[in-house]
Amino acid sequence: MNICPLLYFSDHIKIVDQRRLPSKFVYVRCNNERDVYKAIKEMKIRGAPAIGIAAAFGLWLGLRRIKTTNKAVFLKHLNSLVDFFSSCRPTAVNLFWALERIKNIVLEKKDLPIPKIKDLVYRSAIDILKDDYYRCRRMGHLGARLIKDKDCCLTICNAGGLATSGFGTVLGLFFEAKNERKKFKVIACETRPLMQGARITLWELKQNKIDATLICDSAAAYLMAQKKISKVFVGADRIALNGDVANKIGTYNLAVLANFHNIPFYVVAPLSTFDKNIKRGEDIKIEYRDEKEITSFYFKRKMAPSGVKVLNPAFDVTKNNLISAIITEVGIIRPPFIDIIWKIF
Amino acid sequence: MNICPLLYFSDHIKIVDQRRLPSKFVYVRCNNERDVYKAIKEMKIRGAPAIGIAAAFGLWLGLRRIKTTNKAVFLKHLNSLVDFFSSCRPTAVNLFWALERIKNIVLEKKDLPIPKIKDLVYRSAIDILKDDYYRCRRMGHLGARLIKDKDCCLTICNAGGLATSGFGTVLGLFFEAKNERKKFKVIACETRPLMQGARITLWELKQNKIDATLICDSAAAYLMAQKKISKVFVGADRIALNGDVANKIGTYNLAVLANFHNIPFYVVAPLSTFDKNIKRGEDIKIEYRDEKEITSFYFKRKMAPSGVKVLNPAFDVTKNNLISAIITEVGIIRPPFIDIIWKIF
Repeated sequence: MNICPLLYFSDHIKIVDQRRLPSKFVYVRCNNERDVYKAIKEMKIRGAPAIGIAAAFGLWLGLRRIKTTNKAVFLKHLNSLVDFFSSCRPTAVNLFWALERIKNIVLEKKDLPIPKIKDLVYRSAIDILKDDYYRCRRMGHLGARLIKDKDCCLTICNAGGLATSGFGTVLGLFFEAKNERKKFKVIACETRPLMQGARITLWELKQNKIDATLICDSAAAYLMAQKKISKVFVGADRIALNGDVANKIGTYNLAVLANFHNIPFYVVAPLSTFDKNIKRGEDIKIEYRDEKEITSFYFKRKMAPSGVKVLNPAFDVTKNNLISAIITEVGIIRPPFIDIIWKIF
Repeated sequence: MNICPLLYFSDHIKIVDQRRLPSKFVYVRCNNERDVYKAIKEMKIRGAPAIGIAAAFGLWLGLRRIKTTNKAVFLKHLNSLVDFFSSCRPTAVNLFWALERIKNIVLEKKDLPIPKIKDLVYRSAIDILKDDYYRCRRMGHLGARLIKDKDCCLTICNAGGLATSGFGTVLGLFFEAKNERKKFKVIACETRPLMQGARITLWELKQNKIDATLICDSAAAYLMAQKKISKVFVGADRIALNGDVANKIGTYNLAVLANFHNIPFYVVAPLSTFDKNIKRGEDIKIEYRDEKEITSFYFKRKMAPSGVKVLNPAFDVTKNNLISAIITEVGIIRPPFIDIIWKIF
C-alpha cells in the first residue's frame, strides 16, 4: 500500500497533515503558495523529497494567481516565489533542487505565452512527483538486496512513502524486501522531538504488515550491544559531494554506534538529495527549530521549567567514513564516495 | 539549596511526587509499606540511592504495624517485607543494599524486645538517609576537582538531590563546583521516556542557578562533534565488581559517543551502588517497563499506532573500558577498576 502525501487538482493541492498521524489520517487543502509554505514550515508535510515536491506545486499555485501579461513582471514574480520557498526550511536540499529545476524549465521556455508557462510549471511539478516515485521504486529494487532473512534493521525518523512521493527511500527498501518475501524485522527509533518514527514510520510499516518494534532513540546502543540489530538504514536531507550526510538529528548518533558495534550503516536517498555546491558536511546549514517542540509540543503539560535554555537542532551531519554505502536510484555507491559522486555530477 | 525527596515523621513519611515536576512540587504522604511500594514502583520517588532510602522507611512502616509479640512471627514478617520491597524494582542495587542492611541490624539485635527493634529500624532508616547525604557531600567535594572553568558537562536523567538524600551524585559535583565559583555549563539530556533530565535535573539546576541547557537525547552526538561538550557525568543504578555500570537507558549510548569523540566519561555513585554479588555487567538484571511510558504517558494522545510492539528497557550497561573514572565517597577510582573495587569490598 503506497500513500502519497500530496494530491494535485486543477486549482489546488491536498496534503496529508502528518502531524496528526497516527491518530488521524487527513488531507488538508492548500489553495495558494502561502498555504503550502505554512504546511512545509509547520511540518504538516516533511521529508526531503516530499518537501521538494510540495515546493514545486507551491510555486505553481503562486504563479497561477499572477494576473500580469508582462513577461518581465511574471519572471520577477517567479524569482520572488523561488526566494519565498527557499526561506522555508534550510537543510533539505531537495527543496532548492525542485525550485531550481522548475525555474530553469521556465527560463528555457520563457518565450512561451504566460498561460503556457503556467501550464508547463504545473506539468513539471507533476513530473517531479512521478519521477520521484520511479526513483524510489528503483532504490527499493536495488537496495532490497542488502536485506537478508533474519535481518533486524534499525531506522530513524520517517524515510517512507509520506516523506517522498509515496513509496519511500528506506521504507521503500523494506516494502520491496517484504514483496520479495524476505523474513526480516524493523526497529524504529521514536525520533524526538516530533516523533516521526513512532507516529509515521510505525504507521506505514503497520499498513504494510512489516514486523516492527518501537524504541526510544537512546535505547539503540543497548540493543546493538545485545546483537539485536544487524543493519542500520537512514534517509538523507542533504548529501555533500564527499558523501557526508545531513539527516534527522540522531542519525549521526546511530552512525557512531553502528561503527562501534561493527554494524553496517546505509543511507538511502535519490540523486536530488546530493548538493553539487557543498563539498563537505560542515558546510551544510543546520536548521534549529523552536524549543517548544522539546518542552511542550505533544505533551499534556510543560516538560521543563520555564525559562530554561534549549538547543533543538533538527538535523546532524554524519561523516562519510561512518557510512557503509549510499543507495541511490542509479546504484549502490560504496566508499570512497567522492570519486563516484564526482563522476555522477 | 538542597531538597530531600523524603521527609520522615513519627508514624508516616512524605515523599516528593517527582512525576509532577517541574509543574508542581508536592509531597505525598505514605502511611504504610504499600504506599511506599507503590511510590517506588510508579516512580513517584526514583533514583538509586533515594529508592534505597525509601525502601528502608517502607520496611519500618511495615514493621511498626505488626501487632505480634512473638519474635519468630515478627522476624517472619520482616523477611516477607524484605521480599516485598525486593520485588519492587530490579535494577538499582541500593534498594537491596538498604533492605539487607536493616535486616542484618535486626538479626544482630533480635534479642531486643519488639518495640525496641521497631525503634531500631526507624533509626537505621534515618541513618541511611543521613549517611547518604554525607556520602553525597564527600563525592561532591572529591569530584568537583574534575570540573574546570569553561567546562561544558553533559548529563542524563537525574542524579541529583531528588535521586538521593538531598544533594545528589552528579549534581552534587555541579553544586560543589558552583560553590567553588567555577565557571562551567551543563547540558542535560531530556531522558526519554520519563523525561527526568528535562523535568527534574533542569529544575534542580535552575534552583541552584547553574547555567543549563536542555537537549533531546539524540542530539548529544552532534554537540560532541561540534566540540561543545568537554565531559560527561552520569549516575549509576548498579556497579559490578569489574566496574561495569548499569544506569538509565541512554547512558551506554553516551559512553560510546564520548569514547568516539575522546571526551572523558565519569560515573558518580556511592559505594552502596556496588554489587558484591555481580562480577560483570552482563549479569545485571535490566528492568523493562510499560510500553505506555513511550507511546502515551506524558502525551496529549497516542504517539504510536495501536498494537505496535514496543521495547522499553529502563536501563543499559556500560562496559568498564568506556569509563574514565568512578567518583565515590572514598575516592576517585580509575582503571583498571577491578583491582581497586576488589580491594574496597
